[in-house]
Amino acid sequence: MSRLEGFSAVVPAGGAGTRLWPLSRASSPKFLHDLTGTGRTLLQGTWDRLVPLCGPDRLLLVTGGAHAGAVTGQLPGLLERNLLVEPSPRDSMAAIGLAAAVLAEREGPDAVLGSFAADHVIAATDAEVFADAVAQAVATAREGFVVTIGIEPASPATGFGYVRSGEPLDVAGAPLARRAAEFVEKPDEETARAYLAGGQHRWNAGMFVVRAGVLLDHLATQLPPLHDGLREVAAAWDGPSRRDVLERVWPVLTRIAIDHAIAEPVAAAGGVAVVPGAFGWDDVGDWDSLAALLPGAAQGVAVLGDPALVHAAGGASGVVVAGAGRAVSVVGLPDAVVVDTPDALLVTTRAHAQAVRAEVAAWRDGGRTDLV
Amino acid sequence: MSRLEGFSAVVPAGGAGTRLWPLSRASSPKFLHDLTGTGRTLLQGTWDRLVPLCGPDRLLLVTGGAHAGAVTGQLPGLLERNLLVEPSPRDSMAAIGLAAAVLAEREGPDAVLGSFAADHVIAATDAEVFADAVAQAVATAREGFVVTIGIEPASPATGFGYVRSGEPLDVAGAPLARRAAEFVEKPDEETARAYLAGGQHRWNAGMFVVRAGVLLDHLATQLPPLHDGLREVAAAWDGPSRRDVLERVWPVLTRIAIDHAIAEPVAAAGGVAVVPGAFGWDDVGDWDSLAALLPGAAQGVAVLGDPALVHAAGGASGVVVAGAGRAVSVVGLPDAVVVDTPDALLVTTRAHAQAVRAEVAAWRDGGRTDLV
Repeated sequence: MSRLEGFSAVVPAGGAGTRLWPLSRASSPKFLHDLTGTGRTLLQGTWDRLVPLCGPDRLLLVTGGAHAGAVTGQLPGLLERNLLVEPSPRDSMAAIGLAAAVLAEREGPDAVLGSFAADHVIAATDAEVFADAVAQAVATAREGFVVTIGIEPASPATGFGYVRSGEPLDVAGAPLARRAAEFVEKPDEETARAYLAGGQHRWNAGMFVVRAGVLLDHLATQLPPLHDGLREVAAAWDGPSRRDVLERVWPVLTRIAIDHAIAEPVAAAGGVAVVPGAFGWDDVGDWDSLAALLPGAAQGVAVLGDPALVHAAGGASGVVVAGAGRAVSVVGLPDAVVVDTPDALLVTTRAHAQAVRAEVAAWRDGGRTDLV
Repeated sequence: MSRLEGFSAVVPAGGAGTRLWPLSRASSPKFLHDLTGTGRTLLQGTWDRLVPLCGPDRLLLVTGGAHAGAVTGQLPGLLERNLLVEPSPRDSMAAIGLAAAVLAEREGPDAVLGSFAADHVIAATDAEVFADAVAQAVATAREGFVVTIGIEPASPATGFGYVRSGEPLDVAGAPLARRAAEFVEKPDEETARAYLAGGQHRWNAGMFVVRAGVLLDHLATQLPPLHDGLREVAAAWDGPSRRDVLERVWPVLTRIAIDHAIAEPVAAAGGVAVVPGAFGWDDVGDWDSLAALLPGAAQGVAVLGDPALVHAAGGASGVVVAGAGRAVSVVGLPDAVVVDTPDALLVTTRAHAQAVRAEVAAWRDGGRTDLV
């Protein structure tokens, strides 16, 4: 793996990860937790993966004020100037657009940025494959494309959006790059099976690589007021008036995801490329998908935390989070999910993972905002 | 319900209730807990049931030194002289025999005692039925019988021993008393179904009513050294040498259950009577039998503790013990058993209730004696 010239990584760190309650909370979201037992949090894993490609001084992290302290605590190598703190959440277009605009101010419009979520998991054994995909994406981005890394589907997943590949682009240094024909929403099971069989569809993992100027030009076309606001903020960012401009401009910025703001309309116009990523990837959206990532969760109980705190018997399997220092006995429950935290306990099964979001809502509606 | 003349109740309070771990512990056994959500512990429920029959000054409680403080804390009405503290556990024959011998010293051999476990549940709505059965048992005991109250089976239970009824005894004041033909061990399912259909077998709930002198005479015949030891302890009990005699005599007393020591051999000789008890009874041996006692555990989740701490969804049912002040979400688990205590958590299902004992052993073997 070698450093990619002029490449900056942008990591938006937001979202509560509600379906991973009670480990993940609004006050302590998913990216701050070690969900795979590696000893590194998802945020730290993201750092570990990107810094070899961009260098420690070219990783920009965008997060909210509530999490800035936790982020710098977990990432001591992060430069203070590269921590972009949003006054309030304005969705992914504003977060990534801000980073692009700041980069354009600092390095000019030809700087290439790649945006990667802070709370996804990529198999550590696939680091080289990931690095190669990013390198090809950067090469393609230099040609003026908005580039997405499309993950080769490992299953007919219905929980992810997909991107369909078009014709090869013949970009130097990016032999696998193709035009992105279209982005499609989460499919039903039958459609997902057809996608998997057809070989043209890849998972949209929300990884976008693009020249800062190209992104901002597309934004100027699609959403001029958002573009102008972000440009104004970026121009003031490294100077004395940052706070004043933020206070005035930020609260009225359009809330929109980058997929809707840029990826979909630009793909329709032929401006998006896709580079395939043949690495293990998951967005760890819920306890079921986390269990699928943990060795041992199928035949027995996979423990996050101190294994000495957990005793399983009677055919129990699944995931136990030993997060409160207490002894946990799980007897005879296949595919169990037991999440033990100091103030809240979740007991369910992998099949009910989607229902956890409703639990958070139920506690909130019951007045227990301290738990959510 | 009226006081039964010359009748004393004896309540042996021992046993850890291992299968109700982690609520029940060696340090805080089953009888000290409110397992049915009535606001009274099993011990207090036993007191409430017996005192109307024997009076508050004629209830004798036999327990170990470790639990004497908790017992007097829960039973402020218990006379100090009626708390018989055993230096070490010597099984039920020594406990009940000690009470019988002390009663014989205090009141003479014609005093009638009835022994009732501290950790069984009898439906509060059946208090009159229970009182009537005890009254008939006392009348029968006055005739010289060892009397057991045989519970009318509510199901073909395989977890209880049974007593088979013989011919009617025609005792004044005890129209339903019959000779006990034999005691039988826990049957297999087929045998239990035959018992239920036949109508002659009743559950042996370990309730024995007998004149103190009759019990001691049987003991003198069956186990002379145990009889002599208990007599010696009882003679010293209310005097200055109790401690010295206990130190010398108690440690070598034979460990044996009253069923084996007296009930079975005396029944074989025709000396045991059975009075039927048509009241709801359970020994609450494990989490499954507790769940069966709790309204709401079949269709939904029955909560022991503050219901505001528990949220159930997705078809969850069973029992949740909210014993640590934490919020508990249970999603989509039918027949769940979730027992949340400050230092240990059990997650299982009713079908695995028997396996809980092995969990206690596993933690003990793993060095976590603090949990058992």
